Amino acid sequence: MLARTSLSFVSGFTQNVARRSVAPAASSIVTRWMSEGDSPVAEKTEEEKAAIKAAREARKAEKERKKAEKKAKKAAQAAAEAAANKVEDVTYLTFEEQDSYSKMGDMTRVMSRSRTGREFAKVEDLEDAEKYPAGSKVWLRGRLHSIRVKGGSCFLVLRQGSFNTVQALFFKDKEDPEGSKKMLNYLKTLTVESVVDLEGTIVGDADVKSCSVQSVELNIKRIHSVSKARAQLPFLVEDAARSEEEVEASQDTDRPFPRLGQELRLDNRWMDLRAPANNAIMKIQSAICQLFRESLYSQGFMEIHTPKLIAGESESGAGVFTTDYFGTTACLAQSPQLYKQMAISADMDRVFEIGPVFRAENSNTRRHLCEFTGLDLEMAINDHYMETLEVVHNCFKHIFEGLETRYAKELAVIREQYHSEPVTFTDEPCVLHWPEAQEILKEKGFDMGDGMGDLNGAMELALGEAVKEKYGTDFFMLDKYPAEIRPFYTMPCPEDDRFSNSYDMFIRGLEICSGAQRCHDPDLVQEILEKKGIEAGEGLQSYISSFKDGISPHAGAGIGLERVVFLYLGLDNVRKASMFPRDPNRCTP
Amino acid sequence: MLARTSLSFVSGFTQNVARRSVAPAASSIVTRWMSEGDSPVAEKTEEEKAAIKAAREARKAEKERKKAEKKAKKAAQAAAEAAANKVEDVTYLTFEEQDSYSKMGDMTRVMSRSRTGREFAKVEDLEDAEKYPAGSKVWLRGRLHSIRVKGGSCFLVLRQGSFNTVQALFFKDKEDPEGSKKMLNYLKTLTVESVVDLEGTIVGDADVKSCSVQSVELNIKRIHSVSKARAQLPFLVEDAARSEEEVEASQDTDRPFPRLGQELRLDNRWMDLRAPANNAIMKIQSAICQLFRESLYSQGFMEIHTPKLIAGESESGAGVFTTDYFGTTACLAQSPQLYKQMAISADMDRVFEIGPVFRAENSNTRRHLCEFTGLDLEMAINDHYMETLEVVHNCFKHIFEGLETRYAKELAVIREQYHSEPVTFTDEPCVLHWPEAQEILKEKGFDMGDGMGDLNGAMELALGEAVKEKYGTDFFMLDKYPAEIRPFYTMPCPEDDRFSNSYDMFIRGLEICSGAQRCHDPDLVQEILEKKGIEAGEGLQSYISSFKDGISPHAGAGIGLERVVFLYLGLDNVRKASMFPRDPNRCTP
Repeated sequence: MLARTSLSFVSGFTQNVARRSVAPAASSIVTRWMSEGDSPVAEKTEEEKAAIKAAREARKAEKERKKAEKKAKKAAQAAAEAAANKVEDVTYLTFEEQDSYSKMGDMTRVMSRSRTGREFAKVEDLEDAEKYPAGSKVWLRGRLHSIRVKGGSCFLVLRQGSFNTVQALFFKDKEDPEGSKKMLNYLKTLTVESVVDLEGTIVGDADVKSCSVQSVELNIKRIHSVSKARAQLPFLVEDAARSEEEVEASQDTDRPFPRLGQELRLDNRWMDLRAPANNAIMKIQSAICQLFRESLYSQGFMEIHTPKLIAGESESGAGVFTTDYFGTTACLAQSPQLYKQMAISADMDRVFEIGPVFRAENSNTRRHLCEFTGLDLEMAINDHYMETLEVVHNCFKHIFEGLETRYAKELAVIREQYHSEPVTFTDEPCVLHWPEAQEILKEKGFDMGDGMGDLNGAMELALGEAVKEKYGTDFFMLDKYPAEIRPFYTMPCPEDDRFSNSYDMFIRGLEICSGAQRCHDPDLVQEILEKKGIEAGEGLQSYISSFKDGISPHAGAGIGLERVVFLYLGLDNVRKASMFPRDPNRCTP
Repeated sequence: MLARTSLSFVSGFTQNVARRSVAPAASSIVTRWMSEGDSPVAEKTEEEKAAIKAAREARKAEKERKKAEKKAKKAAQAAAEAAANKVEDVTYLTFEEQDSYSKMGDMTRVMSRSRTGREFAKVEDLEDAEKYPAGSKVWLRGRLHSIRVKGGSCFLVLRQGSFNTVQALFFKDKEDPEGSKKMLNYLKTLTVESVVDLEGTIVGDADVKSCSVQSVELNIKRIHSVSKARAQLPFLVEDAARSEEEVEASQDTDRPFPRLGQELRLDNRWMDLRAPANNAIMKIQSAICQLFRESLYSQGFMEIHTPKLIAGESESGAGVFTTDYFGTTACLAQSPQLYKQMAISADMDRVFEIGPVFRAENSNTRRHLCEFTGLDLEMAINDHYMETLEVVHNCFKHIFEGLETRYAKELAVIREQYHSEPVTFTDEPCVLHWPEAQEILKEKGFDMGDGMGDLNGAMELALGEAVKEKYGTDFFMLDKYPAEIRPFYTMPCPEDDRFSNSYDMFIRGLEICSGAQRCHDPDLVQEILEKKGIEAGEGLQSYISSFKDGISPHAGAGIGLERVVFLYLGLDNVRKASMFPRDPNRCTP
């Protein structure tokens, strides 16, 4: 099957299939905004006016020269194109001058020349017959999702956002054959994914299965392109929007759908994100931050912003990016750990931060990124870090419930392309302890050694399955990790210091959150640092001093935003949960 | 006068004046959590138990050895200290075993041994006589703000947060002279800024002028230190909390207050932030983010997170930090500019981001930072960037009004130390155009040259004053900047391309926000890049491609969070508005 996928989509460009048109020559429009006109800024002195005029003329001359050069270059090409398309000469027209078909230049129209006050309708509102009765006129701005011009007719679909679509039509008018011809010729020049302004009249009693607006369509009265998409797009949004299963199933048919590789998608991420599911994933990412904050605000937290350029590493054992900092070396914070703890010393008793986290780790897996968004919190505790675990549990519950209730539409769109079930979770925290996890994994046939080593990915997945089976939840905590595999700032377990007061949280057997009570005793931290062989540099010295000046006992947690998105939605790769992902092979776009 | 400020506070440490005590030897407590006990984790197999036991014993032996070494080192010092203080031997006691005076070790008590369920009262609630009638017992956790032990009595002030304080008292009990003596001896060992747990009975009808709780005080029943502050603090919080004027006025008296230099404060920022005004400034910073989001959510925006590690510079002309990125060079984003625009191409029509922004500029001024928090937004527009300016104006109005109404308490605390008047602003945007500003500045005697150069700080301040005089507002916009001094991504003014569709916003004559319509035409951007002599590297190529695939006309703004805090509060230095500021000379703490 894989052998059949060698279409042109995997790399490079695909022909913009809707219209194999060529863009009208744009140079004459581009010059338009450079031309003289009444300056919006008035009341100059006479000398000033003269000076400005002279400068203006000099610039104008230089510009004219450049323009002429460019014009010459483009001449041959433009002529050929014009001949092929028989498009009217493009000249700039104001809104008032507009013809029913656009003679306007593409792209440069919206330069804030004036405020038209024109109101654009929302596609999702068009079926509101009271607001938009049949026969009423309406302006829409949107993307040309698809277009077909054949003989004397044109069918196009206009898209707003990523999944609101409506059909619009044009038929040759026998009363005005000349005008109709011009309009059809213009429609032929439009390219899909262009942003267009369209005026149409509402036609009721429609039945358009392929659009989100089904009972209504539009008769096109006027249309023009505001931002013209290139004729050869990297790929089509509809191809980016198909589920893996659909693509797979098509491979044995006459018209197999193209497979879009991850790299091609990420190279043109702005196109990939126009696909409804991908666009909705970003909305879910945004929603999780909002829900996270809502929950923490209601639990008495305040937001902080800690520096990302710091004097030493914030997490020993994780790779670090460094930069020259005015002659010294600064690290890019691998977490806000040290700083959120110093905030506790500064008597901000409950703090959170949403910010970037940097890891210079050459991990090329489906769940690692070199830069991600950390959802971090830290809080003073009375006497037990379970207080924090409960805060975090409440926070996740609020997130999960909020997503399913307030973002049902987005989730439905996502699950249509990426099939998954909602995450199941318990009302009270489901907490496993380390030895129980060891037992479970031994039973599953894993070699746990002395039981004090870290879990690998396979073990975590197996644990997730077992917990689901045993406790019926996808979301759980594993408590009391061995001290040796936890960072130096972790409070040891008071009853047995081989363990620590620390936990991880999992969704479907993959880690989304790490937390712990922190060691707030400066001598004990010093001792642990020595034990772990970490030298306390300048950055750590300040941190330890902040304990020496008195600090409330405290605990906290760090959550990976993209991990939560990726695992909650059951995606196959964390890159799908990041707007512009960073991995060892990718730093652009 | 300045010659009189050479006190010991400017650098180094000051004696913890309240008690010249020495910490009790902590080693015997520290070892306590290492001792054996029932592991909280049960149900092991026999082999496992044996293996664990062996490993445990080996570790134990090694630890015993290290412990012995340490013990020897500390012995002489500890003996001397013990003799000097006559403190009881410190041994760990559970809550139940506690004596009325604490024999407990400092610091290591709260290790999540158990959940006591003890509820700590809030100082601010203590005057609620219904909840806390006279004679009722109450537990408090807080900082020892001050303490005085003299003869048979002790007066102390307990502080929660940065400005909630209550007085607590202890008097020698003639019925229990032995117990009283022990208690007084223990109280003498307490150091200010330590975190303590205190049980007291409510005494009504008090009149404590120096505390936030005035009508009530406490009789101390039990007290113990949870986190002991070092005897020599870098400075006292009360010294950090005085206004410049108060310190100044004291210089000619017998007891001049110490002047705390900015560097000393920043070196020990966690202490500096305990001062009420500084702590409140951080709350205002947090509040501004919340109000910014509230306003934008209500105007249809969604939050995004863009990468900070990028392939090229996002702002030409600004200094950039670079790092090795797996063999290539990555830049630290100087703004999310390119990415928020690509989000528009990805059909997210209204986006905002709150995140760090990096500037490698060797600017040692009171208003520049090398890392600050950007409040960024970008939105599709219908036909004019004034649509965006209105959104931003609404947003600032919401912030200013929200601060004055919801954060009146914090503002009062801040204005007590840093005197300033609230910012005045107009209901509708107050927009000046470039030529008007030029006129004003010429009248004020500034040499404006050809009128196309950027404004310097003095000009901006003078402009702020003039606008305040003329229009009665501290907050205004300056529109239509010359194209030459604006970034390449700015849309030229259609009527006169020497100008651009861009604006800055000012508070009291200092810039807090820059915004503009962006150039969404790929050819025009290319042209501007050439004109400005900027080479379009890998990063910019993607950016331009995102326009070639069609993009809505759009405009946006970038706001500096610390600038808003600093200028809104009329502070003298932006560093006071940053939790841990970064400048060319400071990358720590």
